Amino acid sequence: MLIVHVHVHVRAEAVEAFIDATLTNARASVQEPGIARFDLIQQTDDPQRFLLQEVYRTPGAPAAHKETAHYALWRDTVAPMMASPRTAVRYENLFPEDARW
Amino acid sequence: MLIVHVHVHVRAEAVEAFIDATLTNARASVQEPGIARFDLIQQTDDPQRFLLQEVYRTPGAPAAHKETAHYALWRDTVAPMMASPRTAVRYENLFPEDARW
Repeated sequence: MLIVHVHVHVRAEAVEAFIDATLTNARASVQEPGIARFDLIQQTDDPQRFLLQEVYRTPGAPAAHKETAHYALWRDTVAPMMASPRTAVRYENLFPEDARW
Repeated sequence: MLIVHVHVHVRAEAVEAFIDATLTNARASVQEPGIARFDLIQQTDDPQRFLLQEVYRTPGAPAAHKETAHYALWRDTVAPMMASPRTAVRYENLFPEDARW
């Protein structure tokens, strides 16, 4: 299993539109067989900062996700909303067991 | 619901001991009624860096967690293992619904 945290910093006027576009993407992404979770959370002390927690079941799942129409739409929709470039950090799972993600 | 990400940077020689102590704490923490998840993940490109994802069901749950014996044991056990001070970031949940965490 592969866990990716995507850190997103959105321009103030784009916060609501970013949430809308990302919820649409998340609801479609969790239907992909290779995706166990696709969480969206908002930083409490800075609502312009978000974290996408993407939990992939297989090594090929991230590439499969990037080939979907919902990913392409999201990527193009949110591109002008960024206050700074997105960053991603990859993690290995230690707890709980993979099946509980 | 309150989501807390605790970023931990461990000294190289303490990595295995940190994992052991934190797994013990995580297995006990997920038994607390106020805790929905207590995840431990390890950064792929820097195995000395970990993230604890603590998902609390209620505003009082973080304080209740810090009163447990397993938290106190973990805190004291890992204190000398830190390469730098821990940092925590708080988030609000946007997706999925609270019950699916």
